[in-house]
Amino acid sequence: MDGKNPVIAVIGAGAVGAYYGGRLAQHGHDVHFLLRSDYKHVARNGWMIQSCHGDFKLPPGTMHVYEKAERMPKADWVIVTLKATANEQLGAMISPLIKENTLLLTMQNGLGNEERLAELFGPQRVLGGLAFVCIHRVEPGVIHHIDHGYVRVGEFIESGNANARAISEMFRKSKVQCDVLESLKHGRWAKLVWNIPFSGLGGALEMATDELLCSREGQELVRAIMMEVIAGARGCGVELSQSVIDQRIKETSTMGSYKSSMQIDREQARPMEVEAILGEPVRQAAIAGVAMPIVRELYRLASVVNLAKCHEGR
Amino acid sequence: MDGKNPVIAVIGAGAVGAYYGGRLAQHGHDVHFLLRSDYKHVARNGWMIQSCHGDFKLPPGTMHVYEKAERMPKADWVIVTLKATANEQLGAMISPLIKENTLLLTMQNGLGNEERLAELFGPQRVLGGLAFVCIHRVEPGVIHHIDHGYVRVGEFIESGNANARAISEMFRKSKVQCDVLESLKHGRWAKLVWNIPFSGLGGALEMATDELLCSREGQELVRAIMMEVIAGARGCGVELSQSVIDQRIKETSTMGSYKSSMQIDREQARPMEVEAILGEPVRQAAIAGVAMPIVRELYRLASVVNLAKCHEGR
Repeated sequence: MDGKNPVIAVIGAGAVGAYYGGRLAQHGHDVHFLLRSDYKHVARNGWMIQSCHGDFKLPPGTMHVYEKAERMPKADWVIVTLKATANEQLGAMISPLIKENTLLLTMQNGLGNEERLAELFGPQRVLGGLAFVCIHRVEPGVIHHIDHGYVRVGEFIESGNANARAISEMFRKSKVQCDVLESLKHGRWAKLVWNIPFSGLGGALEMATDELLCSREGQELVRAIMMEVIAGARGCGVELSQSVIDQRIKETSTMGSYKSSMQIDREQARPMEVEAILGEPVRQAAIAGVAMPIVRELYRLASVVNLAKCHEGR
Repeated sequence: MDGKNPVIAVIGAGAVGAYYGGRLAQHGHDVHFLLRSDYKHVARNGWMIQSCHGDFKLPPGTMHVYEKAERMPKADWVIVTLKATANEQLGAMISPLIKENTLLLTMQNGLGNEERLAELFGPQRVLGGLAFVCIHRVEPGVIHHIDHGYVRVGEFIESGNANARAISEMFRKSKVQCDVLESLKHGRWAKLVWNIPFSGLGGALEMATDELLCSREGQELVRAIMMEVIAGARGCGVELSQSVIDQRIKETSTMGSYKSSMQIDREQARPMEVEAILGEPVRQAAIAGVAMPIVRELYRLASVVNLAKCHEGR
């Protein structure tokens, strides 16, 4: 990559992929997006990004869009923003893009995504990114970036963070606040302290954050789940302070009525990321000898919700 | 009551009360209904019952309706069809109707309703009735009785069943199939084998019976919950055969898409009968030394759903 403009591929360009890849393209990077459902619309019209950090357009000439990975160039960076529920497609989607020094950054939710990429393409080239962002696709080609946008990146195999610093710098020069995590695993578990209760309960019970927090019993349930996540994290070698529980609840209480990604997926009859957000943490904690009894039941219930395909699109 | 036409009071006349009280009134009984929201409409227009066992009308002259229990006559029979979520009102509603020989039949869902009446008015006069019926209120004064209708009655204190036979005979002479339970407690737990999984999951997860049963994981969850109910029943002295699990699942699979009362209550932003259907069985089993771990978590989740009043009527 030295001196040359790196080739960046964004795999599964929904709202998150369009935004972060879009910021890179907007700032002169050579970005190639792999899309599915919105391919035709975006190929013709580009993207319109309505962002709290400044609206911008990505006309077709400013980036490249593809329907098939086989047509894409080999990439220096592959940024994965595919829904984790489609992870079985990762091999076929990414293989055509791989050359010797390709680096892979997964910005997907939950646990298990780096492991998946490491199994397929080797662990040394894998990085993980946590996106703290409220964003959604309004219609084909239109993304609404509502709030936040901060990214934290880390390396799957901790080895000096030179690659994490490189992608972090690309983001920072492209209007994306970004820093480097000392420990990716720590960052992933810390994010799960919020995601497991609010996405898990939100999706399984169809409840927004304010509905979960407006009763004493709801707050106690959220706290009990957060305690289990902290215990699970500790089992996996990640120390999180108990004080994050009060912090997360206080922050969330001021957010108004917020629907988690799992709740929105359920409402729109899309599969929820049950394995990445609930199943994999339960399994990793169990291997470390830590039971997460409430989360395990929640995982089971959310799985049954996810599998009720008999009424698709209800 | 010998020879005389008994005075029958129906407390909390929603769909179930209007139907069963209505059948008694239709067949010459002296029935007095206590209503709340539909009082004015029914006082003026009576009821229209669209029943799979034959439609009938109850014009105002054929029965009596009241908005306040204080205006009602003392009753020989008080039939309680109030939602169990309003049980704190039972004392005030029933006290004005009580004379020495008044008998009380609760046809409410779940566990704990007979105990409540026994505490208030003494155990000897308490009976319980299980209604196996698909019925709902279409609009003020209009009840749609869709299917079944069978009733089983039993005495709270087992003492020869003379009172149970008396009310059973009144029902049978009024076009309601009815029999006498050897053990009311056995009947209540047997009904919970269906009600706890399908009402509990249906209400907490907003899922109809077919959605719960269309995946292997959903069937396994329903079975695991039924196993817990059978274990809880055994702890409480009620032996239920494991074979009921296959029977209930088979019957339910042929019912099409059926929404439990808890799911309908949730959809209509009414409180769900969480304590009677989930909480009280968990507590009674726990006192008997039997844990019901999945049902306990389901109870907790359904309670949090029930308490999310910040978005009433959503």
